[in-house]
Amino acid sequence: MNTIGNNFRVSIFGESHGKWVGVTIDGCPAGISLQEADLLPDLERRKAGASGTTPRTESDLPTFASGIFNGHTTGAPITIVFENQNIRSADYSAIRNTPRPGHADFVLTQKHRGYNDYRGGGHSSGRLTVGLVAAGVVAKKILGKINIAATLTEAGGQEDIEAAIALAIAQQDSIGGIVGCIVTNLPVGLGEPFFNSVESVISHVVFSIPAVKGIEFGAGFSSSQMTGSAHNDMIINEEGTTATNNSGGINGGISNGNDITFRVAIKPTSSTPQTQQTWNSESKTVAPFVVKGRHDLCIALRVPVVIEAATAIALADLQLSSSR
Amino acid sequence: MNTIGNNFRVSIFGESHGKWVGVTIDGCPAGISLQEADLLPDLERRKAGASGTTPRTESDLPTFASGIFNGHTTGAPITIVFENQNIRSADYSAIRNTPRPGHADFVLTQKHRGYNDYRGGGHSSGRLTVGLVAAGVVAKKILGKINIAATLTEAGGQEDIEAAIALAIAQQDSIGGIVGCIVTNLPVGLGEPFFNSVESVISHVVFSIPAVKGIEFGAGFSSSQMTGSAHNDMIINEEGTTATNNSGGINGGISNGNDITFRVAIKPTSSTPQTQQTWNSESKTVAPFVVKGRHDLCIALRVPVVIEAATAIALADLQLSSSR
Amino acid sequence: MNTIGNNFRVSIFGESHGKWVGVTIDGCPAGISLQEADLLPDLERRKAGASGTTPRTESDLPTFASGIFNGHTTGAPITIVFENQNIRSADYSAIRNTPRPGHADFVLTQKHRGYNDYRGGGHSSGRLTVGLVAAGVVAKKILGKINIAATLTEAGGQEDIEAAIALAIAQQDSIGGIVGCIVTNLPVGLGEPFFNSVESVISHVVFSIPAVKGIEFGAGFSSSQMTGSAHNDMIINEEGTTATNNSGGINGGISNGNDITFRVAIKPTSSTPQTQQTWNSESKTVAPFVVKGRHDLCIALRVPVVIEAATAIALADLQLSSSR
Amino acid sequence: MNTIGNNFRVSIFGESHGKWVGVTIDGCPAGISLQEADLLPDLERRKAGASGTTPRTESDLPTFASGIFNGHTTGAPITIVFENQNIRSADYSAIRNTPRPGHADFVLTQKHRGYNDYRGGGHSSGRLTVGLVAAGVVAKKILGKINIAATLTEAGGQEDIEAAIALAIAQQDSIGGIVGCIVTNLPVGLGEPFFNSVESVISHVVFSIPAVKGIEFGAGFSSSQMTGSAHNDMIINEEGTTATNNSGGINGGISNGNDITFRVAIKPTSSTPQTQQTWNSESKTVAPFVVKGRHDLCIALRVPVVIEAATAIALADLQLSSSR
Repeated sequence: MNTIGNNFRVSIFGESHGKWVGVTIDGCPAGISLQEADLLPDLERRKAGASGTTPRTESDLPTFASGIFNGHTTGAPITIVFENQNIRSADYSAIRNTPRPGHADFVLTQKHRGYNDYRGGGHSSGRLTVGLVAAGVVAKKILGKINIAATLTEAGGQEDIEAAIALAIAQQDSIGGIVGCIVTNLPVGLGEPFFNSVESVISHVVFSIPAVKGIEFGAGFSSSQMTGSAHNDMIINEEGTTATNNSGGINGGISNGNDITFRVAIKPTSSTPQTQQTWNSESKTVAPFVVKGRHDLCIALRVPVVIEAATAIALADLQLSSSR
Repeated sequence: MNTIGNNFRVSIFGESHGKWVGVTIDGCPAGISLQEADLLPDLERRKAGASGTTPRTESDLPTFASGIFNGHTTGAPITIVFENQNIRSADYSAIRNTPRPGHADFVLTQKHRGYNDYRGGGHSSGRLTVGLVAAGVVAKKILGKINIAATLTEAGGQEDIEAAIALAIAQQDSIGGIVGCIVTNLPVGLGEPFFNSVESVISHVVFSIPAVKGIEFGAGFSSSQMTGSAHNDMIINEEGTTATNNSGGINGGISNGNDITFRVAIKPTSSTPQTQQTWNSESKTVAPFVVKGRHDLCIALRVPVVIEAATAIALADLQLSSSR
Repeated sequence: MNTIGNNFRVSIFGESHGKWVGVTIDGCPAGISLQEADLLPDLERRKAGASGTTPRTESDLPTFASGIFNGHTTGAPITIVFENQNIRSADYSAIRNTPRPGHADFVLTQKHRGYNDYRGGGHSSGRLTVGLVAAGVVAKKILGKINIAATLTEAGGQEDIEAAIALAIAQQDSIGGIVGCIVTNLPVGLGEPFFNSVESVISHVVFSIPAVKGIEFGAGFSSSQMTGSAHNDMIINEEGTTATNNSGGINGGISNGNDITFRVAIKPTSSTPQTQQTWNSESKTVAPFVVKGRHDLCIALRVPVVIEAATAIALADLQLSSSR
Repeated sequence: MNTIGNNFRVSIFGESHGKWVGVTIDGCPAGISLQEADLLPDLERRKAGASGTTPRTESDLPTFASGIFNGHTTGAPITIVFENQNIRSADYSAIRNTPRPGHADFVLTQKHRGYNDYRGGGHSSGRLTVGLVAAGVVAKKILGKINIAATLTEAGGQEDIEAAIALAIAQQDSIGGIVGCIVTNLPVGLGEPFFNSVESVISHVVFSIPAVKGIEFGAGFSSSQMTGSAHNDMIINEEGTTATNNSGGINGGISNGNDITFRVAIKPTSSTPQTQQTWNSESKTVAPFVVKGRHDLCIALRVPVVIEAATAIALADLQLSSSR
């Protein structure tokens, strides 16, 4: 299933080299000002083009298929589509016999008995995140003054990101990174103690983003090395403000009114320019292999806006679910 | 909402100091051998009693309210209840005015306008995980030969766990830990590229467990420091076996047939014996405070079986969803 | 799956002759006054005992397992259980070989490969509706001044219901009936144009009730014989009041502020005292057969309060879903 | 929410006079042969053009946006769009002040505070059923040899449908009808005793279709007038074949292997050519009114294929849910 959310429901569809990719957003209240131009800044942030990103650039112009009338949401489902334009499908014909390490080629072929659209990763492509970003813009509007800011804080293990990219280009090998995210102005009380904890709901959507391999809230993994008296955040006033924020703004799965903070681990782009070894199902041997196609050396550069979108989608659903 | 899963659906109910806690499991196929005794080994692993755990011990005897007939599942919902016996509610009367740092006291009171059952954390208590463990036993039966093993690999920042506990007792301060989990014999093809990635579904349930603050799959956060050529797992045969397992057995959100591996960060028990400071809403000042009640110095000791249960619940749902 | 609802979620569990039957209600807001005694009037209406109903009477005393504290809902799931007391399981041993016509014996045995609890219909028994009625009481509290009233308007094809029952007793054959339901004070705007139309949501829950075989809203089946100019309800003021109510208070799937009206067809109790023919899987022949056990001659007598409950559950979910 | 189904999930989007209407189908297994031409026969049956239907004709050519590769489903979501071509929006400008009786104009304006796309009924238009029909074609493929056949059995209260249409044209007033539906070759065991009874699931989708006001299964409303001994269907062999079919192929909510039969009441088209009275919110009076636009005199003529689609969608979901 390709749908998330109970009261703010997002479904994505499309394949990397198909006709369109897109998204349907259901449950968005009527009367929210929304025009195609509103989507462009976030779509631009996701786009390739900078140093370290793929030369495949798409115009990424959104078209509203439904749900918008006179510049406002109507209360009906909003469907937004993006044409796939800059496609070179010939690049991918070899995937059938030589599944690319780190990619979903092998698993999708097994799962769908060979019927999957293998070109460019098909439905598992990062291309699909264009729909997530579009839905994120709508979610951000619903969240109003709640602010979400994600930034790349490390690449290739260092904080000087430009230097990391330069090194990757010099080495001709892909690299990963760490994205930090902070949510401000969130009210107290979103989330549930168990299956819909804020951590559960955010992590669910964030792990939908290709290349994400870890998430930690507040002090996260370092919590495991702290004592309770050091870790606990002292409450200092009637509004629940805490002196520290080791909990990342969440207690018992519920937002406590302080900033929500989390960090996300992004693995290096699977498509490295380096020669790799993989199984060749034609020759029945492990054989050298070079990934074709055009790819990002550091996909993490493009991920922050997608993480913002994922977070906004998760929080908009929690907010619409709890404002009843 | 306190329900998880699409085709193997688990709902938990109860409060720490209420009459019963329990779980309903819906979607379990008929004909699975299940007796109350089958639940005891995992319930025993979750139990308090060892050094570093709370002196509140419960008999934790499960009663099948429905769904079992002649020692087998009937195909109808399985409800399992546990009586709350060892309750000292008087211990908790002060919570109203002095929300315990690290606990959900403040947020639950705000969220439910004071109507929450505050005794012992109410519905947010770790006591509720007894139902998760019961559901985990059922899920494990559905998973058949798929094996899930979680162990505490670190406590208080060190691998010698007994030493860590001894130190915590000596310091009279609570500590956290790291739980490692490995899933073997999982077939290729569980999970979906986006919103139901294996990582999404496992993390969603794992973050339902109180005190969990981070999760990473495979190489996890250290992936962010690797190059693509070092991180990618070379496929070495037709079955998709990989030479390394940095991906943690998951590509593009889908199980690749290798072991699924992940690590979970557990924060120190919020109820430390140390004197803490917190807001006192009666005196309208920050004031010293000692947590009453009986608590675990290292809740992480009791968490591995709960993480196994969470993982089993997540995977049983994925398996029942994809065997169609 | 035995769960209904998105934001007001009801799950029922239990078997006719198992230990307990019950219900879990999730999504109920905190702070609603609720005591076990509040459930008794509706439970009493559902109970057997009157002329034409089964001599199996249960005390039907509800026990709150969770979700209630100090006489109010806490915001956590509410689980209510009922002990099965008045059980004569020996009556049912023959069901295995002689599936009772009109009952689910044959289909449940096939569906669950013989593992179903066949005693008294097991999980398919009307006994389970005790949980529906309990959930209905909670739903009615959420609905506030919205009123739901269901009554038996016909039994055995005639409006003199006492005469119909007397005739059924004299003939020693079971009969069916028609239940009419009217919902007043419902605001404009509940429901969605398509998959969550008010008709869709109400009919979904109403058809969960055993013995229901038809439903019609407003003029219903007779609409099919009317002209548009006769059927359309003229709007006569700014509030949307209509001069007639052929639409049953629903336009385009959405409540229009007028009364919601619908009629439900109840088939005769499957367990008639008459000798019947059915397949005997032991003798491999069609053979005469008399249903054992204690049964209602006119189950329709007990259904109105269950239909009210089903309607309340459906509308509470719509209301909580749309008040965002 | 505009989504239905758990394992075969259908979402529709679009407005009558917007850019596109369409549907997303999620959960469809990979490897099913599917081409745009496969949709045309059912789309043709739904189309206007015959006597008694609207002069607004659309080419209704489906475009696959995603989910199809090399003429087969890929396992990814299938999105199918239809361009709205034959639009005369100017016809609808008066709707704002004079809500059309029988239509959703008034309720949608209230529900969405005037932000709804009112042109041609917007999202509540029967135009949206083109997506349902497309999804129905996919569902029918999943159902394999299970056959669904719906036909118009009555119009305007009589069985001679041509005569009924001729009369409606002569009278210049719209009429309704009855659609009968029969499902053959369905296996035993689909459906659940309570909230997912076959009747619940079918009725939920069928009541999504505009103009449907009633549904009855098997003997339906006439069941209420029968005795149990007359109504019960005698089981005559090991396969569960019954001598009669008053239950409509469903016992205890579960398919029993006999034909599923049901009847659906269709109200007369709300847009009758007759002069009507309605509230005029400009003049603040009830005033005469003639519906503009182009409409069907007997929408029931076009409904059978939509009911087949709704039934196929419901049954495909039940089948995919129970084949685990």
